[in-house]
Amino acid sequence: MNKLVKCALALVMALGTTNMMAQVKKMPTYADFMSGSSRTSQAMASINGLQWWGDLYLLVDGNKLTATNPKTGKVDTLTTLEEVNNALKAAGVGELRQLSGQALWSDKPWMLLVTPGNYVVYDWQTKQVVRQTKTQQRGGRADYNKESGHVAYSVGNNLYVNDKAISNEPEGILVGQSVHRNEFGINKGTFWSPKGNLLAYYRMDESMVTQYPLVNIDTRIAEETPVRYPMAGMTSHKVWVGVYNVATGKNIFLDAGDPTDRYFTNISWAPDEKSIYLIELNRDQNHAKLCQYDAESGKLMGVLYEETHPKYVEPENPIVFLPWDATKFIYQTERDGFNHLYLMDTKVSVYPEKHSAAAGGTYTESLKTTQLTKGDWLVQSIVGFNAKAKEIIYLSTQESPLQSNLYKVNMKGQVTTINNDEAVHSVQLSASGTYVIDRYATPTQSRVVDIYEVAKPAKKKNMVTVGNNYENIAMPTVEIGTLKAADGVTDLYYRLIKPVDFDASKKYPAVVYVYGGPHAQNISASIRYGARAWELYMASKGYVMFCIDNRGSENRGLVFEQATFRHLGVEETKDQRVGVEFLQSLPYVDKDRVGVHGWSFGGHMTTSMMLRLNDIFKVGVAGGPVIDWQWYEVMYGERYMDTPQTNPEGYAETNLRSLAGNLKGHLLMVHGYQDETCVPQHTLGFIKACVDANVQPDLFLYPGHQHGVSGKDAIHLYEKITQYFEDHLK
Amino acid sequence: MNKLVKCALALVMALGTTNMMAQVKKMPTYADFMSGSSRTSQAMASINGLQWWGDLYLLVDGNKLTATNPKTGKVDTLTTLEEVNNALKAAGVGELRQLSGQALWSDKPWMLLVTPGNYVVYDWQTKQVVRQTKTQQRGGRADYNKESGHVAYSVGNNLYVNDKAISNEPEGILVGQSVHRNEFGINKGTFWSPKGNLLAYYRMDESMVTQYPLVNIDTRIAEETPVRYPMAGMTSHKVWVGVYNVATGKNIFLDAGDPTDRYFTNISWAPDEKSIYLIELNRDQNHAKLCQYDAESGKLMGVLYEETHPKYVEPENPIVFLPWDATKFIYQTERDGFNHLYLMDTKVSVYPEKHSAAAGGTYTESLKTTQLTKGDWLVQSIVGFNAKAKEIIYLSTQESPLQSNLYKVNMKGQVTTINNDEAVHSVQLSASGTYVIDRYATPTQSRVVDIYEVAKPAKKKNMVTVGNNYENIAMPTVEIGTLKAADGVTDLYYRLIKPVDFDASKKYPAVVYVYGGPHAQNISASIRYGARAWELYMASKGYVMFCIDNRGSENRGLVFEQATFRHLGVEETKDQRVGVEFLQSLPYVDKDRVGVHGWSFGGHMTTSMMLRLNDIFKVGVAGGPVIDWQWYEVMYGERYMDTPQTNPEGYAETNLRSLAGNLKGHLLMVHGYQDETCVPQHTLGFIKACVDANVQPDLFLYPGHQHGVSGKDAIHLYEKITQYFEDHLK
Repeated sequence: MNKLVKCALALVMALGTTNMMAQVKKMPTYADFMSGSSRTSQAMASINGLQWWGDLYLLVDGNKLTATNPKTGKVDTLTTLEEVNNALKAAGVGELRQLSGQALWSDKPWMLLVTPGNYVVYDWQTKQVVRQTKTQQRGGRADYNKESGHVAYSVGNNLYVNDKAISNEPEGILVGQSVHRNEFGINKGTFWSPKGNLLAYYRMDESMVTQYPLVNIDTRIAEETPVRYPMAGMTSHKVWVGVYNVATGKNIFLDAGDPTDRYFTNISWAPDEKSIYLIELNRDQNHAKLCQYDAESGKLMGVLYEETHPKYVEPENPIVFLPWDATKFIYQTERDGFNHLYLMDTKVSVYPEKHSAAAGGTYTESLKTTQLTKGDWLVQSIVGFNAKAKEIIYLSTQESPLQSNLYKVNMKGQVTTINNDEAVHSVQLSASGTYVIDRYATPTQSRVVDIYEVAKPAKKKNMVTVGNNYENIAMPTVEIGTLKAADGVTDLYYRLIKPVDFDASKKYPAVVYVYGGPHAQNISASIRYGARAWELYMASKGYVMFCIDNRGSENRGLVFEQATFRHLGVEETKDQRVGVEFLQSLPYVDKDRVGVHGWSFGGHMTTSMMLRLNDIFKVGVAGGPVIDWQWYEVMYGERYMDTPQTNPEGYAETNLRSLAGNLKGHLLMVHGYQDETCVPQHTLGFIKACVDANVQPDLFLYPGHQHGVSGKDAIHLYEKITQYFEDHLK
Repeated sequence: MNKLVKCALALVMALGTTNMMAQVKKMPTYADFMSGSSRTSQAMASINGLQWWGDLYLLVDGNKLTATNPKTGKVDTLTTLEEVNNALKAAGVGELRQLSGQALWSDKPWMLLVTPGNYVVYDWQTKQVVRQTKTQQRGGRADYNKESGHVAYSVGNNLYVNDKAISNEPEGILVGQSVHRNEFGINKGTFWSPKGNLLAYYRMDESMVTQYPLVNIDTRIAEETPVRYPMAGMTSHKVWVGVYNVATGKNIFLDAGDPTDRYFTNISWAPDEKSIYLIELNRDQNHAKLCQYDAESGKLMGVLYEETHPKYVEPENPIVFLPWDATKFIYQTERDGFNHLYLMDTKVSVYPEKHSAAAGGTYTESLKTTQLTKGDWLVQSIVGFNAKAKEIIYLSTQESPLQSNLYKVNMKGQVTTINNDEAVHSVQLSASGTYVIDRYATPTQSRVVDIYEVAKPAKKKNMVTVGNNYENIAMPTVEIGTLKAADGVTDLYYRLIKPVDFDASKKYPAVVYVYGGPHAQNISASIRYGARAWELYMASKGYVMFCIDNRGSENRGLVFEQATFRHLGVEETKDQRVGVEFLQSLPYVDKDRVGVHGWSFGGHMTTSMMLRLNDIFKVGVAGGPVIDWQWYEVMYGERYMDTPQTNPEGYAETNLRSLAGNLKGHLLMVHGYQDETCVPQHTLGFIKACVDANVQPDLFLYPGHQHGVSGKDAIHLYEKITQYFEDHLK
């Protein structure tokens, strides 16, 4: 992890010929960078619909769906768009515009087709519709169970199964939707049992949560469009887990007790559908319990595992049962400081004794538990299993925190490396666990897709390779390296981008790009070490661009992340100071012309750096920033900051309004006016604090945009940000 | 009116000595200009409490109240603060901190003292409290009647008289408050009868008016603070006029019929208290009626006068009865194109025949009417009467539209000039009409106060004279002149300010200050021809400042004002083009560095000029602008624009959002985030239009501020505006 990685890239030279160089635009616009990545899109189109079907891989070739045997290379055509649409028309359920990634059954010649209000199963052998589920859905996400053919979806705040409402709640109570603001890995609200007979779902009462008054200015006269937003320390919502039996139409709720100030996370089903597992947390988020409930009665069957930490515990992965042994499951925890895999045996109970954990907390196991992976690196995700070989296939940072590589581990904890190249991999496993579709990027390749056998990773079939995705734009050199954090001990990775047409004898203005918050990492082994389009754009305009992943960021383990606990932004800013002082020491950087830009947590950091390092940073653009953590939401905010009531000094120290008077440089605050994640009160409150302190920030709002400025307006945003540096830093 | 007025001022030279020059700050801040006017304040403090008491004038001299005979100069002490407070303390009703402008009776040795919740009458001869009215008031304005001692005031949305609520209406219905958004000269909601026995008052139901969602960000979590805002063409409020009889406790409402889409304006009482006069208008505002109602029954007694105009009629002055003849009153109308005084005789009815009026409308008189003043100038206000001489004393623009001078007219329409100097006068008349307190400014004097006999204006007693109010700040030269409007015919007045330390051989950047809307005039015979502190500040920074009163502005008569009807901003911008082309022609102006700033209607004009004259204006700052007239309120907006339904082409032509794509220069939009007059939808909607058009304006909001940025934050605002020109125009 501590090794120095340094590499100079000269992509244009690598790709270029003199003839090609003549085509290079000298001054691209940000729009050129937006459309520049279309090279990748075009390449990806050539592998349209690539996915596993058993151990064959599917591809959509024009209007034709083919299945290929990766071993033999044999290609079969399963069906065509015309055939599909003939069947759909015959059944009177609309038609499809194109084939692309439709779900298939592994054991039947079936394909799922979704048309407005219909979930239709098409048999590509008989070329007929064989099953049809009607819904009352008008858009939005649905949860279809392939085993039973039942589909669950939301209409307004209520939950429907097939064509029937299974809840009838008033406004303020949401049923079947994601809860707890998508923290704890939650991203949906319905969970079918393995055979699709039972549906577990969330019910959230947020009627007691104060509403934040967003305003829509697009109506004849502006209208308030309030959102329920539980702010740190304020009254939060309550969540229940329901179970609906499709056959009986009966609803029950898990008997979990008073839901006030509790989190119900990581729902999963037992393979036999008889019980449901949750990981429950207290509001303090320092005590997690793996609980098992009877799916029929809702009664608590047992607490299988408990974990505490003086700072926080953050479970983000549901348990997963072994496909070859329904008595054992994998639990993931950071209790030893890094996220690792633990095998728990439901057949072997142990005395639930509290143990000290390596990361400073405690744990209590009620089942026999075996740690399968171990080390000062972390498991990023379980990709799947090879049931025959009894192996778990997963991605981890074992080789480097900048990389995601593929490994497998057996039930004895023996790890085998599948790859360890300087890359960020993302893979899909075939049904048996024999093959992978491996999509990855490297520092010099923006997109590669290979198919290979897990056991023979060297023997790849390359599906796509894109090197430089901006082939008509002159690219800068990108370097990475490490610096010691402000603690004097920890290595931090940085990325340095030199201007296009770099001349070492010149003095360039420099801009730091920052995020700095938990669950994100800016420097990786991806294309150009993760440099964003905007950084390349700025380099094309003659800026040195710099980025450093401070303590608190992702993929470095719990101690690294928790250094910021209860005073978010403070340690991070100290580490950023280390970075910028290195930047200023470079002979070709004009140390008097240094700026900073970031969004969201990076907007907080940008504002923090402009105020706390106000002799260094002359120009900043803070987007969608958190300004005062008391205005951020309960789940994320209290995990890292506790509450304003229990940590008043921390909230005071990190409230950037109180530092407004430190502003010396040019600071542009940008906010989406419809931001439901980080509400506009942050930026508007900071503006007011600046007026009160008689300092002069600048402001821009994007009406109609939420926490990010997306779509074509992203061009407007990045041109605005860029122009601000051009106006004030050049 | 068409004469050229040109005058070079060099105030510093006039006031300065070499010794004083040494004290002149070379680079004042805007705060220096804010505090600079304290010289005027200090001078005014020396005439603290100056007002008439009969034909004696009162002054507060320290803690002593004196009365002076202007003829003899004899000074009597009426009372002291100590005596007043002794009496107040004896009555147990608090005390006063200072004497200043307390109301006195003309026929009794009485003085009104107001302490929290108490209206106390103090006899300064017996030194005792002689009358006391208790109220339930907690702040706010009250309407006290000296004759009866009754007091009317609001608590929340309901009306109280003395200590009793006389209405009990739910939220959405306002009683006793100003209505129709203060248009038509309305600025209060209660109107005591002459002897104080009856109270006429407004009742406004605005429960059907759509609410605009303003947002207060100062609470723990931001809160919506909606205001009922009737937008052009949308459903408006309804108004009734009530009459409360204090003795009987009985309330009646004037029987005026369905109040939907009607305006009830200019309430006044008959001298005998038996009837009430209103000027009523239809929603189109093109038909006014002077109506008389029986104050006891509420029945309509008659329509005394009617007036129509194809554009609009705008009554702004209640009728006033002659003090010496309760059968005659003065009506003011612009029916011949200029506001003039008409004597109407309630004893002599005439056949109500419709006549064509000189200004293009019609009028129908039911009473014998004599036009007392006439000419292509206008009466600005009736100052009062001399009952003995049977004269009306008034201010008018007879000498020049830049001036307010004092005149009197007798009942035969013979006008006598009291003064005609280059000045803007504001006067108070003594009880008999014999003397005046005359407060005025001239182009070289910021504040003068004289007392003299109306009949002998040359024999003045000067109370205060302040020349330059910014004695420690170097002042620029200020010139005025005229240019032909875009119509080729009309003279427009402009003001030109040369930079401090002007050097004719240099090329200066130039900034236009603009308002341009109805009911306002920027160039006048006031100090430095009306130049604002900010214009002087900009001149101190080396800008040529320019301002021109375009067609549509005040004091030039109806044709001049109505040139803009149904397409506000269009003709005005053409006239501003004339001004700026003259400005660019000046040898010391850099025609490529021209900017513009204005607020409110001037914000609309600034935006219009940046978009419609985008080859001329490089930098603009638009404050609190109207962007789309459909978002402005019904009363003002529909008067000049009709409704979006009846004038769709006018609303389309004047909607600056549709011109957003024309933006080429730097345009900063500034808005008070609590603006209830011109709601933030204007600026935010324009910003969105600019993002849609992919042009780059700048934005700033002032949370907590309404239509203006007042108090200490005005310094922040003007430094921000100034810096924007410094950044982009210099």
